[in-house]
Amino acid sequence: MNSAHENAAEREQAITDEVLAAFSATADPRLRAIVRSLIGHLHAFAREVRLTEGEWEAGIDFLTRAGHLTDDRRQEFVLLSDVLGLSTLTAALDAPDAPGATEATVLGPFFVDGAPEIPLGGDLAQGAPGTPCHVSGRVRSTDGSPVGGALLDVWGADEDGLYDVQYPGERCAGRGRLRTDADGGYRFWTVLPTPYPIPHDGPAGDLLTACGRGPMRPAHLHFKAAAPGFRTLVTHLFVAGDPHLARDAVFGVRDSLVVEAAHHDDGTAPDGSRRRGAWTSMAFDLVLAPDHGSVPGR
Amino acid sequence: MNSAHENAAEREQAITDEVLAAFSATADPRLRAIVRSLIGHLHAFAREVRLTEGEWEAGIDFLTRAGHLTDDRRQEFVLLSDVLGLSTLTAALDAPDAPGATEATVLGPFFVDGAPEIPLGGDLAQGAPGTPCHVSGRVRSTDGSPVGGALLDVWGADEDGLYDVQYPGERCAGRGRLRTDADGGYRFWTVLPTPYPIPHDGPAGDLLTACGRGPMRPAHLHFKAAAPGFRTLVTHLFVAGDPHLARDAVFGVRDSLVVEAAHHDDGTAPDGSRRRGAWTSMAFDLVLAPDHGSVPGR
Repeated sequence: MNSAHENAAEREQAITDEVLAAFSATADPRLRAIVRSLIGHLHAFAREVRLTEGEWEAGIDFLTRAGHLTDDRRQEFVLLSDVLGLSTLTAALDAPDAPGATEATVLGPFFVDGAPEIPLGGDLAQGAPGTPCHVSGRVRSTDGSPVGGALLDVWGADEDGLYDVQYPGERCAGRGRLRTDADGGYRFWTVLPTPYPIPHDGPAGDLLTACGRGPMRPAHLHFKAAAPGFRTLVTHLFVAGDPHLARDAVFGVRDSLVVEAAHHDDGTAPDGSRRRGAWTSMAFDLVLAPDHGSVPGR
Repeated sequence: MNSAHENAAEREQAITDEVLAAFSATADPRLRAIVRSLIGHLHAFAREVRLTEGEWEAGIDFLTRAGHLTDDRRQEFVLLSDVLGLSTLTAALDAPDAPGATEATVLGPFFVDGAPEIPLGGDLAQGAPGTPCHVSGRVRSTDGSPVGGALLDVWGADEDGLYDVQYPGERCAGRGRLRTDADGGYRFWTVLPTPYPIPHDGPAGDLLTACGRGPMRPAHLHFKAAAPGFRTLVTHLFVAGDPHLARDAVFGVRDSLVVEAAHHDDGTAPDGSRRRGAWTSMAFDLVLAPDHGSVPGR
């Protein structure tokens, strides 16, 4: 119960103190720490900006719209987390502090668990429209040794900037899993990714517009790399020269992840096949951090 | 674009800086201030607790469930704001800093605009079950002068702890509007409010349970008082002696708003009517702050 207070600042602090005290009985210490920090920052935000009732209502409406837009194929809360930089920050917070390991970045809303496995050197485009692109590289440990048998999930947008799951139906294209060979090597065909806008017909898009920001992401290919004894790595390969690299709508770009795409016409591909017409190739090595067992809170 | 950084703390700060820079082009200065403060506190929260990907996913799921539970009759985001103390804090932030004015508290999710007007002294219970309760008082300005013609909205729960809108159908009960007389006086009959749990079968209820908190609100009657030249007041009358006064689930209680309910059996009511059986009476004055014109951001 709140008592009378001399001035506004004391009254406001008393409210925050009362709320924190009410949550002090939280049994789980991790949840208690999270809730206390969340309340502290939520209240500090409201006090800092002197939030009005009208703005509070606008915030409730904003979250309600996001909730109603979210379904099995659209996750507006993930988009909001993305455009506010929280997704990228969380990926950084959760990344192993292992010098030399490939930098992590956001998972994004288009990952699908259990994509079909393709043989090394196979084509995961599966009819996705775009310029053929050969991607190859090596997966190794931070100590330099090759990681054979690593499971790679790869997914990307087609030349129209769309992922398979954004089309009607159950088509799987531009997406697949493969395993590295004994030397940690991998190679596959797909289509060259292109820049695309994140879905921006909802609250996240309204926020971008109101704040003078664009919805574009630079061209990229998603990688998820898992192997026993290593921390699972979620990252992107970004295509060098993309005009959106400096203003990714979701703040996912890391300099170390930007790769040149070589452009070819006809000729012999790295896998020995004869090509007709335009194709591209990229090389991208992945360095995994050893998993030193479970870390508290991870 | 993010460059390589020497250590984790620098990497994390660089992400926050990049996000803040991206939002610096926000044209509206008020929105810019709000977004910058929001991002600062959101990122500080994530860094303070070292948020993991799994916890981030749990947060996305939590918001998604809240969104899917919210409809015309249920507002889970308001409930979340309530149980985290944000609603009460915002009411305090937005309240006029006028000594002597009645303290404001939360509006709550059960206000209905445009309730039927009843004559002074009338009964707004309209069939709501409970012990009859006569409520009377005076509306005045902080300078002591009576406020005649003030429009009062009053709404409360019945003896089962339910508001009319929580029943199926379109019944209006325990709710009404009335106008003060020339001396600022008002009086009406309703039913004595009882304590009740906020809806707790969703994410807000899960949070309360996980944090060892209960869902109960102490018995109260809602008031909204509006008059030309005055700031609109949203407040509660709380019934003295309620066991939940010290642990209101939504932190709405203010000592100055707690009122004794007099209990009677038979006899003559304040309006001169002869009563049979148990009834109660309460007196509650409302002091409004003058409206000194529009305040920026309000």
